Amino acid sequence: MYDGALQDLIDELGMLPGVGPKSAQRIAFHILDQDQTEVDRLIAALKAVKVKVHHCETCGNLSENDQCRICADPRRDNSIICVVEQAQDVQAIERTHAFRGLYHVLGGAIDPIRGIGPDQLRVKGLLQRLADGTVKEVVIATDPNIEGEATATYLARMLETMAVPASRLALGLPVGGDLEYADEITLGRAFEGRRLL
Amino acid sequence: MYDGALQDLIDELGMLPGVGPKSAQRIAFHILDQDQTEVDRLIAALKAVKVKVHHCETCGNLSENDQCRICADPRRDNSIICVVEQAQDVQAIERTHAFRGLYHVLGGAIDPIRGIGPDQLRVKGLLQRLADGTVKEVVIATDPNIEGEATATYLARMLETMAVPASRLALGLPVGGDLEYADEITLGRAFEGRRLL
Repeated sequence: MYDGALQDLIDELGMLPGVGPKSAQRIAFHILDQDQTEVDRLIAALKAVKVKVHHCETCGNLSENDQCRICADPRRDNSIICVVEQAQDVQAIERTHAFRGLYHVLGGAIDPIRGIGPDQLRVKGLLQRLADGTVKEVVIATDPNIEGEATATYLARMLETMAVPASRLALGLPVGGDLEYADEITLGRAFEGRRLL
Repeated sequence: MYDGALQDLIDELGMLPGVGPKSAQRIAFHILDQDQTEVDRLIAALKAVKVKVHHCETCGNLSENDQCRICADPRRDNSIICVVEQAQDVQAIERTHAFRGLYHVLGGAIDPIRGIGPDQLRVKGLLQRLADGTVKEVVIATDPNIEGEATATYLARMLETMAVPASRLALGLPVGGDLEYADEITLGRAFEGRRLL
């Protein structure tokens, strides 16, 4: 549609997640209108994130240092580790303020179809962290979908052989949701997980 | 929420039009996961667009050359000029294949509240293009809103003093739309502009 460099930018932007052709065009025109300093700041931010951000040596969370903020915080409870698939999950759990332990970011879930097994994930690192007996519980907080459940089942078995207690996040109705609109599987899990009052 | 460079990138992305905090975060994580070469290509595209793309000397449309594709095309009808607010409007009209003349991109619309008057737009350039008498009609295709209408009225008066015939795009029902759902103003304009069959 457009000439050379402008179309190139629209194409590049259109490959970003959640950016359709219309948004890509809108952003490209915005970039064209912006001051050079503003565009330079975006470019610098893109460069910096690739150079500075890497994975925490201990837990695999994102960090600019060898240890992430959470692993480096002495106030965190180091007797409990919450296992999640990705760094975004750490942030989601942190927002709840419901967990004061440490994390372990697997970097995905077991997915045989895509060739992702335990060796492609940070499973070995997790087992190493459990070796000295400090950790008394592992909360498995992988996603409540097929891959996440498969990963949880696999980890639960490994932890059993190591005699480390494992737990799994509760499945049930989302707070504030309407029972009427809950899908059958969620509603079924809510029944299975019902608690005596 | 996140540390340094990652949060900086999320903030920068969040300032782009149509990119909310959630999308910004999603794009930032995507950038983190991408190969360096892919990110370099995006950065190169951002740089190139600012360096290469500028305004056509004649019409103000976007171009990598002194003259845009349309002004440089000898097959275009140089006796009719369509005046639009911005370069995106040129592309919208080109997609219709309904117009084979030349364009003039004002670079906005008259908007006294924002301090945009004729001097902030490419009005002088338009008048210069009309000076030699080649142009027999000017189609005013500014947006059908207050600023666009004000701009159209202003231009129509200027063109009248120069004795150049001016026309304005028809206002009426959108094709494929439902009369029932048309807003009152559009429906009113459709009545005013009704044609005998």
